[in-house]
Amino acid sequence: MGSHNIEPLNMMNPLDPEEFRRQAHLVVDFIADYYSNIEQYPVCSQVEPGYLTKTMPKSAPLRPEPIETILQDVNKHIIPGITHWQSPGFFGYFPSSASTGSFLGEMLLTGFNPVGFNWLASPAATELEMVVMEWLLKLLQLPESFSFSSDGGGVIHGSTCESFVCTLVAAREKKLNQFGTNRSDTLGKLVVYCSDQTHFSLQKACQIVGINLSNVRSIKTKMSMNFQLSPDALTMAVESDVRAGLIPLYVCFTVGTTPTTAADPLLILSEIAKRFDMWAHVDAAYAGSACICPEFRHFLDGVEGVNSFSFNLHKWFLTTQQCCCLWVKDRTDLTKALSTNPELLKNKASDTNKVVDYKDWQIALGRRFRAMKIWMVIRSYGVIGLQEHIRKHVKLAKHFEALLVADNKFEVVVPRNFAMVCFRISPFALATVANGCSDEESNRLTQALLESLNGSGLVYMTHAMIEGIYVIRVAIGATLTDEKHVNMLWDMVQGHVSGLLAK
Amino acid sequence: MGSHNIEPLNMMNPLDPEEFRRQAHLVVDFIADYYSNIEQYPVCSQVEPGYLTKTMPKSAPLRPEPIETILQDVNKHIIPGITHWQSPGFFGYFPSSASTGSFLGEMLLTGFNPVGFNWLASPAATELEMVVMEWLLKLLQLPESFSFSSDGGGVIHGSTCESFVCTLVAAREKKLNQFGTNRSDTLGKLVVYCSDQTHFSLQKACQIVGINLSNVRSIKTKMSMNFQLSPDALTMAVESDVRAGLIPLYVCFTVGTTPTTAADPLLILSEIAKRFDMWAHVDAAYAGSACICPEFRHFLDGVEGVNSFSFNLHKWFLTTQQCCCLWVKDRTDLTKALSTNPELLKNKASDTNKVVDYKDWQIALGRRFRAMKIWMVIRSYGVIGLQEHIRKHVKLAKHFEALLVADNKFEVVVPRNFAMVCFRISPFALATVANGCSDEESNRLTQALLESLNGSGLVYMTHAMIEGIYVIRVAIGATLTDEKHVNMLWDMVQGHVSGLLAK
Repeated sequence: MGSHNIEPLNMMNPLDPEEFRRQAHLVVDFIADYYSNIEQYPVCSQVEPGYLTKTMPKSAPLRPEPIETILQDVNKHIIPGITHWQSPGFFGYFPSSASTGSFLGEMLLTGFNPVGFNWLASPAATELEMVVMEWLLKLLQLPESFSFSSDGGGVIHGSTCESFVCTLVAAREKKLNQFGTNRSDTLGKLVVYCSDQTHFSLQKACQIVGINLSNVRSIKTKMSMNFQLSPDALTMAVESDVRAGLIPLYVCFTVGTTPTTAADPLLILSEIAKRFDMWAHVDAAYAGSACICPEFRHFLDGVEGVNSFSFNLHKWFLTTQQCCCLWVKDRTDLTKALSTNPELLKNKASDTNKVVDYKDWQIALGRRFRAMKIWMVIRSYGVIGLQEHIRKHVKLAKHFEALLVADNKFEVVVPRNFAMVCFRISPFALATVANGCSDEESNRLTQALLESLNGSGLVYMTHAMIEGIYVIRVAIGATLTDEKHVNMLWDMVQGHVSGLLAK
Repeated sequence: MGSHNIEPLNMMNPLDPEEFRRQAHLVVDFIADYYSNIEQYPVCSQVEPGYLTKTMPKSAPLRPEPIETILQDVNKHIIPGITHWQSPGFFGYFPSSASTGSFLGEMLLTGFNPVGFNWLASPAATELEMVVMEWLLKLLQLPESFSFSSDGGGVIHGSTCESFVCTLVAAREKKLNQFGTNRSDTLGKLVVYCSDQTHFSLQKACQIVGINLSNVRSIKTKMSMNFQLSPDALTMAVESDVRAGLIPLYVCFTVGTTPTTAADPLLILSEIAKRFDMWAHVDAAYAGSACICPEFRHFLDGVEGVNSFSFNLHKWFLTTQQCCCLWVKDRTDLTKALSTNPELLKNKASDTNKVVDYKDWQIALGRRFRAMKIWMVIRSYGVIGLQEHIRKHVKLAKHFEALLVADNKFEVVVPRNFAMVCFRISPFALATVANGCSDEESNRLTQALLESLNGSGLVYMTHAMIEGIYVIRVAIGATLTDEKHVNMLWDMVQGHVSGLLAK
């Protein structure tokens, strides 16, 4: 082969196995040390806007820099600007629960770095995804109709919003085909239903797929009904739209809403969706994980009546960002709406229709080999370990709830369903006000309590407003959170509230 | 704190730092060994459909399994099903070029695992993204108008399709607001333009955002014009639609098309877009990376005239999946169309408008800390190293092209712009046919050559059909590809074509 030499290439090798080995070992130790020391950092970053943009060079470095220098900069510049979602004192939003198993999965999938847009581009990526989606289907006791062995199937999306977009487009195309004739005219008449507790991503997804936002019905819920979507209110809203000549398209039910973890009654609601020929989707982003425990599975009763179901493994299933699992009852609904079949990707396996080409189940063409991390998580912890993980956090949340209930300075505002507790300072906490203070005053105090607790840097929580009441959401679910951290939180709550009430 | 003990939790700790350290070191060695041995594996997986779904257990394991067992299964069951995009013999599609720097970035971002939907949720994630997007802007000599220091800015998306969707929605909302009154009616009149060489994801993005596919104009290109979008043809198409009462919305130009890496003339085309008040987007998914070298920058001349520009670092910029960088000239176009401001995420930093909340620049709410890997890549290799990486592959492609040109059995069908060569077996290769065989016969032979080469397991390439001609695309860009691999490919091409022509 000496005959076709060209002038020597004087190149670095950015995938030199031995240099890879050396540097990656360094970073493993860096991250292990980070987890060891994580309680030393303020949970919510305390930097000011612009802290990093001011410090960093304005242009890319010309020459390569050694990993040792870069890691020093991670310590000096990056870590102070991180809000430490992995800290055991992180109780904000919903958890983003990392684990060693998921980390190893990310390493492997990044190491292989295939682009599994169709089966052939990396058969293992597609087939392992089908395998783990069937495992999860069984774990959640989802109906057989969502399985690949029937007409359904599961796919890993990056986010719930992507699942909303894809199912909305599937539902929209189905409906437009039913009505034929004037697409634009029909499109303008399509209506989407949800509750005022539904995640705001649904609204965004509607905006993306071209549903008039004036045709998105956000049905009011009530505290007295535990913020569940009311079947009567839904029926009335749909009937009113139908009378007005509009076309019901899609309804979203939630199991484990973001503000309070409310769970909609799927059984009766899905009947309504069927009656009006609407696509029904269940968003169990947070609470889906809990439903692998038999004692929580009843929250999914009725799921057999809907068209699609999704939950986020990246919240509470020990799986790193981004991993939203979506199942549909009729996979051709998705593929009819999202398929592309360009010459460039033609291949025998796809032509025979014997394989799944996941590009037709999602927005993008490219995709990471995310099944790898789910597979690693499930095998590393087993069903028993995963259930134990869920139950641990639920037990801690029950414990924290009991402490609040036993103390008349506090009010648990909504019943706890899973591992999140919503509380406020009770209007009766102020000894000086015999009949209780106003909600406004309680709101002001509760918000001050939250800010004071977060300001400590030891814990981090976020809030919700429900029927005019400001509540602190304590979402227990960080992988490292243990009994001592919940007890520390309780001691802090006690200390800070005394200070506040004394003023 | 003994006062609030609950019954002891008998838990595994899925983030135990020492167990993390032990297992992650094992996986580092596993992956380093994989890179050492990668040439032993068939480049394109040779498994049959169903190979893994048949083998894997039907249900998730009940009990945790040791990492050693799982890694054995990766070797036994996963690796045979992987199409090895990192193999030096991978010349298919466009490259998916991994690197140690990017791998380390993935480790760090996965280790921290924050969810940087807004600034506060992890300030470092947002600010580092702004920093690296400005670095890249300068590297590509993009106009100042795309910078955060003007009214523009950059964001990391997962895929080009996501960039299409977001810019289409931004353009759509802007246009619908201009026209006011009847949204549905206007929506039905919006027209999108591209060439027949534009990536098929644009069509899909149009479908997603509710543009009638009958209003997507795929303008025919010609081999005689090197498959560039013709300014005249574009003007005629737009004028004809305007006469018919339709509304030009959006046009996509490509620098480095997927079939042949053709580059559209941005300067003159962007003038047409302006004349008709259309949003112009430049998709430089593949070739954008090359434009960090001054000798390729001219392909972007005219980019100052468009509204948005995107390129994929995950193709040829040593960055792992998924990393599409998008810049817009007016960031409020994006945020007006994609913003959400729910109570749950309200915080002082966002309220002051001093920070960027990237959730309003993309589809999903959640997002990975992808800036970390770009930062690691740029610092690990430096601008000089990255340019060297690009130039190495271009040099190898030139070399391969020269070998083809010097051999009259082959025809280089389109001029090489970057590091991809499109060739076929010349119609004059068959000594028995004096006037050359038909294109059909050449197509048949070229396809047979491709299948025979891929069947060897030593290399992998894919094809394109251009003006009825079947070409083999040799996309040089895998990180490990070196001169010896290109020479091996050439020797194989020679050997296999002789066999074919002898038949």
